[in-house]
Amino acid sequence: MTADAGARIQSGSAPARPTRALIREVGPRDGFQNEPEVIPTETKVRLIDALARTGLRRLEVTSFVRADVIPQLADAEQVLRRIDVPDGVSRSVLIPNERGLDRALHLRERFDEVNVFLSATESHNLRNVNRSVSESLAGCERVLRRARTEGLRCEGVISVSFGCPYEGHVDPERVFEIAERLAAAGAQEVGFGDTTGMANPVQVRGFFERARERLGGGDRVELTAHFHNTRGQGLANVYAALEAGIDSFESSFGELGGCPVPAGATGNVATEDLVSMLHEMGIETGIDLPALLACSRAAQYHLGRPLGSHTLVAGPIDWRQQWQRAR
Amino acid sequence: MTADAGARIQSGSAPARPTRALIREVGPRDGFQNEPEVIPTETKVRLIDALARTGLRRLEVTSFVRADVIPQLADAEQVLRRIDVPDGVSRSVLIPNERGLDRALHLRERFDEVNVFLSATESHNLRNVNRSVSESLAGCERVLRRARTEGLRCEGVISVSFGCPYEGHVDPERVFEIAERLAAAGAQEVGFGDTTGMANPVQVRGFFERARERLGGGDRVELTAHFHNTRGQGLANVYAALEAGIDSFESSFGELGGCPVPAGATGNVATEDLVSMLHEMGIETGIDLPALLACSRAAQYHLGRPLGSHTLVAGPIDWRQQWQRAR
Repeated sequence: MTADAGARIQSGSAPARPTRALIREVGPRDGFQNEPEVIPTETKVRLIDALARTGLRRLEVTSFVRADVIPQLADAEQVLRRIDVPDGVSRSVLIPNERGLDRALHLRERFDEVNVFLSATESHNLRNVNRSVSESLAGCERVLRRARTEGLRCEGVISVSFGCPYEGHVDPERVFEIAERLAAAGAQEVGFGDTTGMANPVQVRGFFERARERLGGGDRVELTAHFHNTRGQGLANVYAALEAGIDSFESSFGELGGCPVPAGATGNVATEDLVSMLHEMGIETGIDLPALLACSRAAQYHLGRPLGSHTLVAGPIDWRQQWQRAR
Repeated sequence: MTADAGARIQSGSAPARPTRALIREVGPRDGFQNEPEVIPTETKVRLIDALARTGLRRLEVTSFVRADVIPQLADAEQVLRRIDVPDGVSRSVLIPNERGLDRALHLRERFDEVNVFLSATESHNLRNVNRSVSESLAGCERVLRRARTEGLRCEGVISVSFGCPYEGHVDPERVFEIAERLAAAGAQEVGFGDTTGMANPVQVRGFFERARERLGGGDRVELTAHFHNTRGQGLANVYAALEAGIDSFESSFGELGGCPVPAGATGNVATEDLVSMLHEMGIETGIDLPALLACSRAAQYHLGRPLGSHTLVAGPIDWRQQWQRAR
C-alpha cells in the first residue's frame, strides 16, 4: 500500500516545478501530540478514517514513543488496530527506538511505513531525546535496517535542518551527511524539518538544489520538505522547494501541532493551505479540498477551539463565480 | 520627502531578485479603517509617530473619505496636523474623489503622496464605490492630474488585480490597461491589490514579469505589490514577486485590517512578517524589526485583542545564539 512516487520529478539537475505533489498528513501524530487534552481514541480513529478518504495517500497515524513520555499517543496500538484506511493510503508510524519498533511489529500488518528522527544539531538532539547525534544516528540505523527486513518503507526525518534555536545556523553539509547515513541504512525517504520556522525561501531553494544533487533523484532517495509556519513563511518555503524540484511535503490538517515554541506560535504548515496553494498553481495532489476542510472542521469541533488554518476560515477560492451585478 | 527609489531594480526584462526593497506601511489607513471600535486620534498619532521611527520610509497615514462612510477615519485632518514624521519618511493619504482632494489640499504641506484606487472588475467596483470602472477611472484621472500640479507624488491602486470574489478570473491585460491609464494621468506608482487573497505564486510571477514589460522600469512607473494573507499565501506571493524583480510592497503592521472577508479571515500581509522574511533572505529594507514589533505590540495593547502577525508571537529569529549544552 505504499504510495506510488513513480512519475514524479526528483531526478536530474535542472530543477523543474513539479506538476503533481505528494503530501503526508502528519496531524494525527505531530498534531495530536501537541494537544494538552488527551483526545479519545475513538475521535482519533474517526478523524484518521476521514482523512484517509480525502485523497491523501500518506498518513502518519501515531507514534510508538513511551506512554509516560507522550501520554497523548499511549493508545498507538488501539489506533492502529481500529483505523480503517483504504488501499493505496500508506499508514506511517513514528519509531523512536528499537523498543518502539518491537512494540510496533506486533501489529506489523496494520501499517506500511516507519519514520525515525533525529536533530541536525547536538544541542537540539540533547534537549529533545537526551542523546548525542551520533548515538541517535546509530539507533536510527538499527531501526531502519530491521524495519527494511520486515518489508516496511522507511523515512528518516532530520529536525532543525534549516536552523536551530540553540545553535543558530546549521551547515547544510552536516545535514546532508546525516541524510546519507540514513539512506545508507535503508531510508527510502529523508524528510528535512524546519522545526522552529527558521527557514527562508532563498535558503530553501539553495538547500534543496544541493540536496537533490547530493541525495535525490530516480531510485535513490525521496526528499521531503517539512515546513513550519512559525513566522508566516511556511508556504513561501513550499514554493521555493517546488522551484527546486521538490514534490513531497509533510503538513498537518487544521495547522495542528508541530513544536509551537514559544507558546502561541503556529507549528506545521496547514495541509489545507498547502493543498489550496498547490491546486491554485496547477499542481495536482489528488486531494479533495472540501473533504479535507471537513476533517479540520471536525477536529476544531472536537478540540473545542479555533484552529490556525487560513483556508479553514476563508474557505477555498471559488473560481466558478458567475458575473453578478451588484445592484 | 519622497522616498528614494533610485538604485532599486525595476528595469530590464530579465528579472533579478532585488537586494533591497521598499515597504509602504498601510496599517494606519487600511488597517485602522477595518477596526470596529473608533481609535482615539491621540493613539493613532502615537502609533504613526512610532512607525515613522522604525526605518519605514513610506506611510499611508489616513484617508479623505467622507466621515459618514468611514467614521474611523473622520479625524484625517487632526491626524495629519498632529503627526510628527521625520524627514525622509513619505506621508501618503488616500483620496477617494475630487472633494476628498479639496479637503486634503487645505493641509498640503502635511503630506507628500496621494493614492487613488479603483477595482479591476465592474462588479467589485460597483459594490465598493457604486460606480462603473470607467467612471472611477475618469475620477482617478482628474485627481491624479490635479495632485501632480500640486507637486504631490501619486500612486494608483487597482483592487482585485489577481482575482475577484464576484467575477472570478481577472484578465491581466485588463489590469494593465487600467494601470496604463493611471500612469498616463500622472501616477508614478501603480499598486496591484490581491484584495481577497486569490493570488498564487505562479500567477504572481507571470503577472509581474508581464507588468514590468508593459509598464515598469527606469523612469516609467513603479510597480507595487499589495498582498493579503487570506489563505496563508501572502509571503509566498511576495517571494514570487521578488523573483519577478518587484521591490516595492505594501503591508500592515500587526496584520491589521485589509478587507477581512469573510469575518475572521486575515487581511494584509503583516509588515513584520514581510520584513522578517526579507531580512532573512538578505534583502535590505532599512527597517528595525524589533522597533516595528514594538509598534505592533502597542497596537495590540490599544486594540485589546491578539493580532494575527506571526513574528509578533514567535519573535524575530536570533541567529546569534551561542552553543548551549542542554544539561
